[in-house]
Amino acid sequence: MANPIACLLIIGNEVLSGRTRDANLQFIATGLGEIGIPLREVRVIPDVRETIVATVNEVREKFDHVFTTGGIGPTHDDITSECVAEAFGVPWEPHPVAWERLASHYAKQTPPGDFNLARQRMATMPRGATLIDNAVSIAPGFTIGNVHVMAGVPRIMQAMFATLAPTLSGGPPITSTAVHAKGAMEGAIAAGLAAIQARFPALDIGSYPYYRIDGGGVALVAKGADPAQVEEAGRAMFALLAEAGADARMGEPE
Amino acid sequence: MANPIACLLIIGNEVLSGRTRDANLQFIATGLGEIGIPLREVRVIPDVRETIVATVNEVREKFDHVFTTGGIGPTHDDITSECVAEAFGVPWEPHPVAWERLASHYAKQTPPGDFNLARQRMATMPRGATLIDNAVSIAPGFTIGNVHVMAGVPRIMQAMFATLAPTLSGGPPITSTAVHAKGAMEGAIAAGLAAIQARFPALDIGSYPYYRIDGGGVALVAKGADPAQVEEAGRAMFALLAEAGADARMGEPE
Repeated sequence: MANPIACLLIIGNEVLSGRTRDANLQFIATGLGEIGIPLREVRVIPDVRETIVATVNEVREKFDHVFTTGGIGPTHDDITSECVAEAFGVPWEPHPVAWERLASHYAKQTPPGDFNLARQRMATMPRGATLIDNAVSIAPGFTIGNVHVMAGVPRIMQAMFATLAPTLSGGPPITSTAVHAKGAMEGAIAAGLAAIQARFPALDIGSYPYYRIDGGGVALVAKGADPAQVEEAGRAMFALLAEAGADARMGEPE
Repeated sequence: MANPIACLLIIGNEVLSGRTRDANLQFIATGLGEIGIPLREVRVIPDVRETIVATVNEVREKFDHVFTTGGIGPTHDDITSECVAEAFGVPWEPHPVAWERLASHYAKQTPPGDFNLARQRMATMPRGATLIDNAVSIAPGFTIGNVHVMAGVPRIMQAMFATLAPTLSGGPPITSTAVHAKGAMEGAIAAGLAAIQARFPALDIGSYPYYRIDGGGVALVAKGADPAQVEEAGRAMFALLAEAGADARMGEPE
């Protein structure tokens, strides 16, 4: 069975301006690998309606799953939800469950909070959306079609992903194995590594130089959905480094 | 004068798999803002020929500048350079200056290194490319048309960016001002903030909740190319927080 594939849209001017360092990509990439839905593309796009609508429509056709982060809060620049409605061509309307939940949340505050227009936006969703609950914030994310809309704040996104992930049908998990050697140089083992990649076309074989205060080296990584092949490629990579005279070790460099 | 705009392509399976956390986006976003070439989109794409070629050709039409990171080393998965040549429809051939430089670098090693086929790839470039030198590694990046091809290793990329940035003609630098208030809630000031955005349509006004062990709050940020407008928006955002009864402070939260 081929693995379904995913695209992540990181929506927010603050990432593009450099103000905020994204902290979600790596978490989602790792989590999706574990459930066998490898991430194949990420786009960081601004809080601009036309861009969000066009991008959502482009990538939801090309990928089995689309995950978005950011832009679902109460302020004027939080426009992801209404843009997803527009992309799907459905009304953007109060979601009864989310509405009730937020209304009672603000009513219970001391003093009672105002469930104002801004906060009502967080309970307004594309028609047909199903909620993605989370234990951290009162405002839910949602899924419509193959698009999963999550918060940008990392701990809220992570709580939403924890709810969402078990509901998705992935392929076999992506496993990986790594070997490394201090002092090894990519240029000396490149031909041998290309031969290993050719031997295991279903795997993704990568070479990553690293730098440490006490000297650098190369890490070689094999990834794929077949654990036996991954393990065999790992042994071949270890042998390649050892035959080149390097001090080969299993695992990533510390 | 309108600011030219930029797109960044982060090329590498290791970012999409979660193995490697990207460390280049924020540096490039900040650096481009300083030279007045704001970053408008980022894509993270895999080491797949068709994807790289199609993406380069799409974004070099849509943006004034395209920056790429990753995929210019000597191994089989380093295919950025040849893909950029294919995107431009030009031969991928030895660059005389880069070739001479790498050949003499390996000849001078003790014992002499082998300037083998893998290493020769790092001196092979699209016809018409101009080199982007750097003080850290012997292998240069290059520019062809409006596409700037850089290394993925952060310290090498940063050295290349330092060489490249002064050669680019940007618009006015993007400046920003921030205010914040502990305990403030986005939902309570959203309407007022939307009014400020409406008053300064040329600026990018953002609202960012933050969380600290001793309590959270909201940071408001105004960005734009007109420093006087940015400053005026900053004063308006400060007044908005103060009028809402919050303890408004200038700057980002610590």
